[in-house]
Amino acid sequence: MTHITLAHGNGGHYMRQLIEEIFAAKLGNSVLDASADAATLPALEGELLMSVDGFTVKPLEFPGGNIGSLSIHGTVNDLSVCGAIPRFLSLSAIIEEGLELELLERVISSMADAAKEAGVEIACGDTKVVPKGEGSGVFFTTTGIGVRQPGLSLNMSNIKAGDAILVSGSVGDHGTAIMLAREQFGLKGDIQSDAASVLPLCQALFDLPGLRFMRDPTRGGLATVLHEIHQSTALGIRVKQTQIPVRDPVTSVCEILGYDPMYLACEGRVVAVVDPAESQQALERWRQLPQGKEAQVIGHLDSKTARVVLETEIGGERMLEELEDDPLPRIC
Amino acid sequence: MTHITLAHGNGGHYMRQLIEEIFAAKLGNSVLDASADAATLPALEGELLMSVDGFTVKPLEFPGGNIGSLSIHGTVNDLSVCGAIPRFLSLSAIIEEGLELELLERVISSMADAAKEAGVEIACGDTKVVPKGEGSGVFFTTTGIGVRQPGLSLNMSNIKAGDAILVSGSVGDHGTAIMLAREQFGLKGDIQSDAASVLPLCQALFDLPGLRFMRDPTRGGLATVLHEIHQSTALGIRVKQTQIPVRDPVTSVCEILGYDPMYLACEGRVVAVVDPAESQQALERWRQLPQGKEAQVIGHLDSKTARVVLETEIGGERMLEELEDDPLPRIC
Repeated sequence: MTHITLAHGNGGHYMRQLIEEIFAAKLGNSVLDASADAATLPALEGELLMSVDGFTVKPLEFPGGNIGSLSIHGTVNDLSVCGAIPRFLSLSAIIEEGLELELLERVISSMADAAKEAGVEIACGDTKVVPKGEGSGVFFTTTGIGVRQPGLSLNMSNIKAGDAILVSGSVGDHGTAIMLAREQFGLKGDIQSDAASVLPLCQALFDLPGLRFMRDPTRGGLATVLHEIHQSTALGIRVKQTQIPVRDPVTSVCEILGYDPMYLACEGRVVAVVDPAESQQALERWRQLPQGKEAQVIGHLDSKTARVVLETEIGGERMLEELEDDPLPRIC
Repeated sequence: MTHITLAHGNGGHYMRQLIEEIFAAKLGNSVLDASADAATLPALEGELLMSVDGFTVKPLEFPGGNIGSLSIHGTVNDLSVCGAIPRFLSLSAIIEEGLELELLERVISSMADAAKEAGVEIACGDTKVVPKGEGSGVFFTTTGIGVRQPGLSLNMSNIKAGDAILVSGSVGDHGTAIMLAREQFGLKGDIQSDAASVLPLCQALFDLPGLRFMRDPTRGGLATVLHEIHQSTALGIRVKQTQIPVRDPVTSVCEILGYDPMYLACEGRVVAVVDPAESQQALERWRQLPQGKEAQVIGHLDSKTARVVLETEIGGERMLEELEDDPLPRIC
């Protein structure tokens, strides 16, 4: 058989084969027991964090990643920015009848590589098959359990006026890479998604006393994270356009298509809010990492500003409004 | 707005509103923080179990339940049959553009009721919206964390020849209810799904020293659970047709449509394997519970039999083969 059939989801012989030959073969570890209804986790010392993400990205494979690696990175990153070391993940796959088995294998292989790199294990899984036309290739959902770094409490309520805002790398790469991969615009480029584990970036700041809060800008991009901080803290935000790293090909594509990179998803970047006295130290730590070379201090929290304000290249000001319309569905 | 739009999934204003007004409003608790990337779990004493299930049932609402309550029951049940008390669940929703908001609200309300009844809290959630035609109403995935009952180790490797096999109630109700709810067969009946939490049934046996193993027969039904036990233990199985509870309307519908209730999904039943010396005690405990009134000892493990054998009403024998074709997709 070369493609997924409904029988791969019925609980019987073909489903057992699919699970054994693809899922368990590639993702197997000492915790995963494909024949049990639940996995027993090894003892975990410390405070546990739990996070969940659904993945619906289209196309399933794109420059710089695929839905498999993305499904690991997304949940690993949500735990990492909360100050936890990710440990165990659950995996649910909702597969559409007709999906190529070779494609599924590639995607699950990338998932296994990403899990290994991030130091997480798939503890349990579930697969469902829906009839052709009632799904879209495959949707994954991962739930992660992590252990909070002792003593670390990252929360928007820690944020104070004057705090510095940093971003770990260029913004909009993932969103632009997905757009181009869809080929619906007839544009080609060498833009790669930034999708990656941000655990090393987060760990680099874990022991910085002035670290207040971190978040990875995914759906809605950097602008949406700034809005979430603004709404939660009731503090204004000022960011400088010249400080926000955007790669030239991303700028070009966005200009042609009328998108704003500030609102496009990243999948391997971190926004950090830190005590201004420690912003240079945080920046240096990030720049020492391969994934943090383009890190920048992009702005600060400002009690005299009522909105999220972008100071433009030419010296003007532009309000960054909260996202209303969807610029790009199925980005993650 | 009366229906889900793509903007409900973009990370911006409408998504925040959807999460606050439906998901957080109905499922909110002290652990869930819709503004955080991960939830902090309260300290849990004991060994942790983790289980995941994806839910794709069609139609979304059916006699006896809906996809919301089912998404709670499914994961609660997987933890319960493994000997754990379910505590926290994550929830991922992959919603199709165009879904009626009122339907979503009903389903999330049922989810809240089912969670309350089972004593679990939704710790974290994620929503995605896919364009019309790329999903099917809504798919949910829940991952549960439970605490193993101290000293309890349920595993197929505990099973011995001679052990008794019990089922807690009638089989095939859920599968038949879903078939009828689809209305594609032009049949009507008053068959209700058996979908429910099996935690009370499992807890009733937790302290029985001769309890070897439990499983809830979902996809593939009772026959598939028997096959899983047979394959794992390499022991034959003999069950008596006259002892297997099947409701009359289920038998009638299955006869008309050519289905076998042995292969149809249940969503609120338990199959238990126990020391034969304790089978009557187990049976009595179940029959004292409202959901166990129809419980039966249906057969036993038999080292002299090489297959899964059904002793028929008229005194013959029939092999229950492993499921090959899918009798009914999107049953759960």
